[in-house]
Amino acid sequence: MKKIRVGLLGLGQIGGGVFRLLAKKASLLKRETGVDFEVVKILERNVSRRLSVSAPLRLLTQDPDSILKDPSIDVIIELTGGVRLTEKWYYEAFRNGKDIITANKALLAEKGDKLFQAARKYKRQIFFEASVGGGIPVIKSLREGLLANQIQSVSGIINGTSNYILTQMSQNQMDFGEALKLAQDKGFAEADPTFDIQGIDAAHKLAILIRLAFRIPVTFSKLKVRGINSISQIDIEYAERFGYVIKLIAQAKRSGKSVLARVEPLFLKKDHILAKVDGSFNAILFDGDEVGDCLLYGKGAGSEPTASAVVSDLCDWAKGLSSQFPEVKKSQPWENKEWSSSRYYLRFSALDQPGILAQIGRSLGKEKVSIADVIQLESKAGNAVPLIMVTHDCLEKNVDRAIQSIKKLSCVRGKPQKIRIED
Amino acid sequence: MKKIRVGLLGLGQIGGGVFRLLAKKASLLKRETGVDFEVVKILERNVSRRLSVSAPLRLLTQDPDSILKDPSIDVIIELTGGVRLTEKWYYEAFRNGKDIITANKALLAEKGDKLFQAARKYKRQIFFEASVGGGIPVIKSLREGLLANQIQSVSGIINGTSNYILTQMSQNQMDFGEALKLAQDKGFAEADPTFDIQGIDAAHKLAILIRLAFRIPVTFSKLKVRGINSISQIDIEYAERFGYVIKLIAQAKRSGKSVLARVEPLFLKKDHILAKVDGSFNAILFDGDEVGDCLLYGKGAGSEPTASAVVSDLCDWAKGLSSQFPEVKKSQPWENKEWSSSRYYLRFSALDQPGILAQIGRSLGKEKVSIADVIQLESKAGNAVPLIMVTHDCLEKNVDRAIQSIKKLSCVRGKPQKIRIED
Repeated sequence: MKKIRVGLLGLGQIGGGVFRLLAKKASLLKRETGVDFEVVKILERNVSRRLSVSAPLRLLTQDPDSILKDPSIDVIIELTGGVRLTEKWYYEAFRNGKDIITANKALLAEKGDKLFQAARKYKRQIFFEASVGGGIPVIKSLREGLLANQIQSVSGIINGTSNYILTQMSQNQMDFGEALKLAQDKGFAEADPTFDIQGIDAAHKLAILIRLAFRIPVTFSKLKVRGINSISQIDIEYAERFGYVIKLIAQAKRSGKSVLARVEPLFLKKDHILAKVDGSFNAILFDGDEVGDCLLYGKGAGSEPTASAVVSDLCDWAKGLSSQFPEVKKSQPWENKEWSSSRYYLRFSALDQPGILAQIGRSLGKEKVSIADVIQLESKAGNAVPLIMVTHDCLEKNVDRAIQSIKKLSCVRGKPQKIRIED
Repeated sequence: MKKIRVGLLGLGQIGGGVFRLLAKKASLLKRETGVDFEVVKILERNVSRRLSVSAPLRLLTQDPDSILKDPSIDVIIELTGGVRLTEKWYYEAFRNGKDIITANKALLAEKGDKLFQAARKYKRQIFFEASVGGGIPVIKSLREGLLANQIQSVSGIINGTSNYILTQMSQNQMDFGEALKLAQDKGFAEADPTFDIQGIDAAHKLAILIRLAFRIPVTFSKLKVRGINSISQIDIEYAERFGYVIKLIAQAKRSGKSVLARVEPLFLKKDHILAKVDGSFNAILFDGDEVGDCLLYGKGAGSEPTASAVVSDLCDWAKGLSSQFPEVKKSQPWENKEWSSSRYYLRFSALDQPGILAQIGRSLGKEKVSIADVIQLESKAGNAVPLIMVTHDCLEKNVDRAIQSIKKLSCVRGKPQKIRIED
């Protein structure tokens, strides 16, 4: 039986999961692929991690080169999650004739152009199924299963932490802070949740999807990203009252010759297919010109699902399958252009003074933003009260200009809330 | 550029769709695969079909051998849908060193064992993504994306016609007959809807999924199959009232060393992920031991989605990807064993006589079937009235025995209804 010698970079949650899965499923993998995979070296500096997955001490190294440059190693699995240092390891691996399998979305999102170019130059491959949607075969479906399609749009719930928090806020009437704490206690959010709640993790994954779905390069730093950290219980409540749920949606769609892309919380109609994706689950919806809507749903994170995706890539690699996709087209850039006209949910906090509604209404009217619905809550002893509005279809730049002038009104307090309504 | 000469068997709805798609997406396919696909011969006896897709007359032949035995043809796409005659073409193709791409679920379900054995013998391949779930990459996800998983269960809505009819009955309060007629008018059901409404089409697809997911041979004729033709508007109504929807579910699950499999209408809780799959859409839910629940959703039929799947297979074939999976295990047969204990919805039609409820109750009690809920509708002038019951958990064989004795009661009219409740 053919033996494949694997070098593993990183023995954290995912790396440990892959190490365990390769051992646990060795006979299944032999049967399915005719190949015997053996992890022969592991880069990991943290010794307690080694203990948690009981990897033999003799496999461990602190020197990446001893893996990258080892001619007896056939393929590299990179699961460190790092960006700056890790990037260099890729070039070293390519120079040494090695392909890489990874779950590193931050690296692919931020350095994708350079990495894929380098892979092309050295005739090497990067497999990255595990970088988006955990165990769900998103990349494979898009790259191979929907290959005959021109993708019109991609939209998805691709950050499980945010979705878990929003689900708790919606189903158990929790505050953002409480829900975040629960997510941390349950292991759905990290001690430092910044990347998740600010939408950055979702944007990393979106950048990878854009590259594949539209064949265009993405300058990650220019991607418009907004997370869920500004969402309050009152927004969740009013979404519900109007027949919507709030979800953090990563979206990209073809618009003429360019692609519009964004990560932001949206109001989704309750019967929208993504509205029903709850808890830490992920779902990605593709619209292909031949297949129409196609949705993939499952666990977007966690050690086992992610390891399942890594091992699926490893088997593809062993079968000699190419992960390559054609060079991206520099001529067709994605754009942060104006989203088409939409309705918006707005929430202001204002002192309950006579004429306040008229003042806010005037600011909106001046920007051609007309209001479909207003709810003014009763004031409690002179405190600022929430004023909730739903606009008719209007352009975002107009709403933004109106908000700028409303913020300057003397009776308006705090930060206004604006959430796009996806109808 | 490498040229691939394709022989097409069948120019019906799907065959025509593939012919059109290969022409329409020629440049995309060249870019993605580096290959130029050319359909060089088409088997089609019906000339009006040729006209509908405007395939050049010179490509047409009525002689399958002129394709199967043509040494200049690289690969065969079989889209005739036939079984007996078509089976022989496969052996002829294999003998002539040709692989086959197909959407023919009836053939694979009924002759799968022989066909895959023959393919193995001649070292040939059968690609069949289009046979289940139309344009949804179900087969690829299962075979490659979830390869590291032991699949615990597969369940799905895989017949769009039945699902369209049930959705109409549920959302628009239609009778079965009306909904079927509408489905036919809209092109979602064929003039002869037998295969769809009796569950046979779903069972064909389930047989293919079982082979792949559990690596076991399926004797198609022994698969337990029930369609939607016995479902009445009243069943839909009471399902709704109890908090359920009725869906035609194809299911297979590991149970110890064997696999239980079935196609039948089920009561699904309204918040079940498959309960929300409406209209002609399909959805397949896999439970893998590593990934957990993973759902694929999309258009399960139609010319474009199905052609998209066929062309995706063709591209995989061109890349030299194997469709092979290891030999099925004869030692681990699927079984029509008793499903584990469930609740059941029962509906009897009975004359409104004193003591009728007691009589039916006695028959159920004798078989240890206890009742959680009873609804007896009011009688209209001595006509038989529906008597609706929901049982506690019980074994199906007991319910069936009770129904047999209830049918013999003098006051019971017509055929009793029994639908399993999936909790």
